Amino acid sequence: MTIEVDYIFPPEVDAEKQGQIIAVGQTAGTWGANFAHREKFLHSHLGKVVKGVTNPEGDSIVTVAFPEANVEGDIPSLLTMIFGKYSMAGAAKVLAVRLPENYGLRPKFGIKGIREILGVGVRPPLMGIFKPALGLSTEDYASILREVANAGLDIIKDDEIMGNLEEAPTLIRLHVCRQVLEEVKEKTGRTVLYAINVTSKLGKCSNPLDTAKLLVREGANALLLNVLSYGFSVLESLAADPEINVPIFAHPALAGAICAAPNYGIAYPVVLGTLMAHAGADAVLYPASYGSLGFDPTEEGKIRDILRSRDVFPVPAAGIKPSVVPQVLRDYGQDVILMAGTGIMDYPDGREAGVKAFFQALGLELGVRE
Amino acid sequence: MTIEVDYIFPPEVDAEKQGQIIAVGQTAGTWGANFAHREKFLHSHLGKVVKGVTNPEGDSIVTVAFPEANVEGDIPSLLTMIFGKYSMAGAAKVLAVRLPENYGLRPKFGIKGIREILGVGVRPPLMGIFKPALGLSTEDYASILREVANAGLDIIKDDEIMGNLEEAPTLIRLHVCRQVLEEVKEKTGRTVLYAINVTSKLGKCSNPLDTAKLLVREGANALLLNVLSYGFSVLESLAADPEINVPIFAHPALAGAICAAPNYGIAYPVVLGTLMAHAGADAVLYPASYGSLGFDPTEEGKIRDILRSRDVFPVPAAGIKPSVVPQVLRDYGQDVILMAGTGIMDYPDGREAGVKAFFQALGLELGVRE
Repeated sequence: MTIEVDYIFPPEVDAEKQGQIIAVGQTAGTWGANFAHREKFLHSHLGKVVKGVTNPEGDSIVTVAFPEANVEGDIPSLLTMIFGKYSMAGAAKVLAVRLPENYGLRPKFGIKGIREILGVGVRPPLMGIFKPALGLSTEDYASILREVANAGLDIIKDDEIMGNLEEAPTLIRLHVCRQVLEEVKEKTGRTVLYAINVTSKLGKCSNPLDTAKLLVREGANALLLNVLSYGFSVLESLAADPEINVPIFAHPALAGAICAAPNYGIAYPVVLGTLMAHAGADAVLYPASYGSLGFDPTEEGKIRDILRSRDVFPVPAAGIKPSVVPQVLRDYGQDVILMAGTGIMDYPDGREAGVKAFFQALGLELGVRE
Repeated sequence: MTIEVDYIFPPEVDAEKQGQIIAVGQTAGTWGANFAHREKFLHSHLGKVVKGVTNPEGDSIVTVAFPEANVEGDIPSLLTMIFGKYSMAGAAKVLAVRLPENYGLRPKFGIKGIREILGVGVRPPLMGIFKPALGLSTEDYASILREVANAGLDIIKDDEIMGNLEEAPTLIRLHVCRQVLEEVKEKTGRTVLYAINVTSKLGKCSNPLDTAKLLVREGANALLLNVLSYGFSVLESLAADPEINVPIFAHPALAGAICAAPNYGIAYPVVLGTLMAHAGADAVLYPASYGSLGFDPTEEGKIRDILRSRDVFPVPAAGIKPSVVPQVLRDYGQDVILMAGTGIMDYPDGREAGVKAFFQALGLELGVRE
């Protein structure tokens, strides 16, 4: 099996030549006569330029096929091969990566599993986020959660910058929130997920794997991970670990540092779509075109389709408010998590009304609540 | 203590406004009257724009000070705070990060420790790399190593794309190379380091932390880590782990995806200097201005100085060959590792002659061998 990668080069670059440099320089490299005895093996590791096209704007897209045997079936070794050293060689962007279907991991839960846990059969689950991001007490967390969970919210998450802060330590935050979720469960029968932020420092833990395991042992029913800050290997380790028997929500923090530049780095659909989906994420947050950032709807659509092709829940984030719900449903159908930040927490008539407004928007459109 | 970050914006951006957005949006965020009871805490987490200048080219540099209490003393939470969500907001590049001196980790070995292990007091240690990158047998590794180690090489490393390949499995590669290094030690008294590549899959290990520990237990005397492919948290975990009692060489693979774009991402000196040096690397490889890539000498100088300020060994890589040594010595003095790729492995008169040519170049300049 091969791994195909599309690279895009600006008009001033000799794309064909660069494709060759990648195919050889990012694999076996060159060798002299003294390695004649290894020809067969050396050749078997070489990449190959399989296609080259120039688009009307003058940019060239070159496709290189890499032997799957060069890598370990994970994302880090893949990244090193397809763009490691070459990323420092000049203007070039990884536009698409096509992996064998069995490459890497699949979600433990994904769309079906998360729906099952929530007991939400058809409609999009509704997700909120604790705001303000830092500075609240654990009592504030409990009281916000009580309000939105009772109003019907399905999933709450930490802000991605929330760590193990002195005034709201992660384990205490987890415990008070778990208590609220149990109250809600008892009262309504509904399971609400709290995606708590996995960071490095917690109790005696000093790395995110140990932290995540401790959180799950202490009752966390979902995890949030800043995959690009901590590393793809952390997501993979969590996804592969049977102890982590809760859904993992991947956050896109830092993605712009890799994806946002026009002629450098790796395209958003690769990083937030392909790589996340093959690294075992259950749900992936990513920028949406609905917000003020003006994210490209084509890129957003690619991420959506790549994630869904592996049963990963797409979670477009930015600008999701009740008035946008009909548009989201047109773009996504039902298999999408409606992730509202200020859309719930800063709703003019309060958070409870914010949650209800989302259900109204869904109900008007769908006539169903579950 | 505060953490200061310089962001650079192109002329068309309202930099002052963006600085404010970062200072607030990447920390506590905004809040309403209902959080009056938490004002003191909320305010304590806010960032602050402390400086703004516009340079002659029209770019603006804005400095934001962040409270150290917002993060966990590690690199991942720092990255999420200073650039997480904001990286997706448009053109902006992190130009410099100034951390409190006690932030993060220090190298276990660093310049002094690596010199001690090698028994190399003053001159730059000489480092080589196994080439071709993939496709050799373990016997090839042993025979290459025997040649260069006996000729006087101090450190050998895997190519960064080398994983646990079928025809040269990592543990067997380690064992045959260890045997050679023991022969050399016995014969010459010299310790030669082999920085073996840490990957995800090895024996029963499925993550880089377990792999690294297994490698050390099996006799590895140095490790190579593609920090940006696996994640900064992996480097930190290795650096903090007492079982990893060997130097860690950080490789810059993938750095260009984050650092190479003019108006996006994070500058090379931050990623390969500041972040590596506070994450516990003992030595850091980074692009040099001597090679064909034409890396900017000013950036290279910044990386060098940042690394050395924390006793981390700088390893400029690219274009290092005997004829360049005098220039390297002028730029670096003695505290630099001379990292030669083709400069040794493809030396016209053979590898042994390549190693000797480096010593000649050093000797001519210095009159010393140790």
